[in-house]
Amino acid sequence: MLRLYEYWNSGNCYKVRLLLAQLGEPFERVPLDIYKGDTRTEEFLAKNPNRRVPLIEFPDGRRLAESDAILFFLAEGTPWLPEDRWERARVLQWMFFEQYSHEPYLAVVRSWHLAGLIEQNRAALADMMERGYHALGVMEKHLASADYFAAGRYTIADIALYAYTHVAEEGGFQLDEFPGIRSWLDRVRSQNGHIRIGDAVGKVVTWP
Amino acid sequence: MLRLYEYWNSGNCYKVRLLLAQLGEPFERVPLDIYKGDTRTEEFLAKNPNRRVPLIEFPDGRRLAESDAILFFLAEGTPWLPEDRWERARVLQWMFFEQYSHEPYLAVVRSWHLAGLIEQNRAALADMMERGYHALGVMEKHLASADYFAAGRYTIADIALYAYTHVAEEGGFQLDEFPGIRSWLDRVRSQNGHIRIGDAVGKVVTWP
Repeated sequence: MLRLYEYWNSGNCYKVRLLLAQLGEPFERVPLDIYKGDTRTEEFLAKNPNRRVPLIEFPDGRRLAESDAILFFLAEGTPWLPEDRWERARVLQWMFFEQYSHEPYLAVVRSWHLAGLIEQNRAALADMMERGYHALGVMEKHLASADYFAAGRYTIADIALYAYTHVAEEGGFQLDEFPGIRSWLDRVRSQNGHIRIGDAVGKVVTWP
Repeated sequence: MLRLYEYWNSGNCYKVRLLLAQLGEPFERVPLDIYKGDTRTEEFLAKNPNRRVPLIEFPDGRRLAESDAILFFLAEGTPWLPEDRWERARVLQWMFFEQYSHEPYLAVVRSWHLAGLIEQNRAALADMMERGYHALGVMEKHLASADYFAAGRYTIADIALYAYTHVAEEGGFQLDEFPGIRSWLDRVRSQNGHIRIGDAVGKVVTWP
C-alpha cells in the first residue's frame, strides 16, 4: 500500500490527502510533526535528504518528494490531469507558480502565525504580504474569465492552489477583494469527495 | 515560429535557450532587461501578469510561463523527457526541488551580487547561503550514486538544475567540497549541442 509521510496542517501534505481521497485510493499515513523536528531525524533524512514532507513511499522502496510532483504522478491517467500536451503544460505552469510565487508567501506567513513567530519576522512581513497579495492578484485575474486554472475543469492545478489559498486568512491575508477566488474556492469545495485539511483519512501508521 | 521573451543572464531563461538549441528548434528571441523594468510594462503584463521571464508565445497567441513548465512542454516526445510515468515524476520532483529549494537561494544571492545589492541584503545573507548550501548538499548526495538526476540519463531535470548551479560561484557559493556536482557539471557541458549562458542563439526580435 502507498505510504504518505506528512504533517496534518501543512497545505502541501493536504494536497496529497485530498487527491488520494478523491481518487478513492487507500493509503497508510505516517503523521510527523514538522515543528518538533520529525523531518530532521536521521531516519527521515535517509528517506528525504531535503527534510520535507509530503513524501510518498511504495512497498518496493521507491520514494517521491515534492507535493506537486506527487500530485502529477498520482493523477496520471485520471481526469485530474488532462491528456492534452498543452493543457498538461498549463497545469504545470500553475503548479510551478504555486511553489515559486504563492506558497513561499502565503504558506510561510501562515506558518509564522501558527508557530508564534510573527514578531521575530516583523521586518520581512510587509514584503512577504505584498508578494502574497501579488500572487492572489494573478489568480484573481485568471479567474475573471475562467472557472478553473487549466483545461476548463477541476485538475491538480486547482488542488495545488487551493491548499494554501483556502487558509490564506490564517496568514492574515484578506480575500474580500478577490471575489473570483472566493467563488473558485466554493467550486473546489463542492467537488465530489472533497475533504477538509483536518479530516482524518488513510490508515494511521506509527514510525519509525 | 516560437517566440521566447527573456533576459540573457537569467538562468531560468537560459534553461529554455539550452533546450531549444539542443532540440535544434528555430525560435525568435525577444531580449528584455529585467533590471530596467521591461517585465513590468503594461505590454508585458498583458502577456504575463506574474511579470516574469521566460515566457514562450506561439503565433496563435498561446503563451506559457514558468521555466520548468516550458521545459516539460518542449521536451515532450523527445529523449530529454522520459516516457515512463515514474521517471517523469522523478524529473518533476527535481524540477520542483530546483524552484523551491535551490533557485530562491542560488539565483537570488547571485542576482544581489550582479545588481550590487549585497550590502543592503546583508542581514539575510547568511541564512540564504546556508539554504543554498543545503540544496547543493542534497544534489551532492544524489550524485554520489548517480550520473544524472532522473532516468539514468541527461534530461530536463539536469537542464533545470544546471542553470543556476553552473554559475553558483557568481553568487559566492564555492563548489570545492562538491566533487559530485563538479563532475556532473562537466557531464552536462559535454552533451551534444550544449551552449553557454551568454551564447547568442535564436533570431533576435525587438518588441514591442
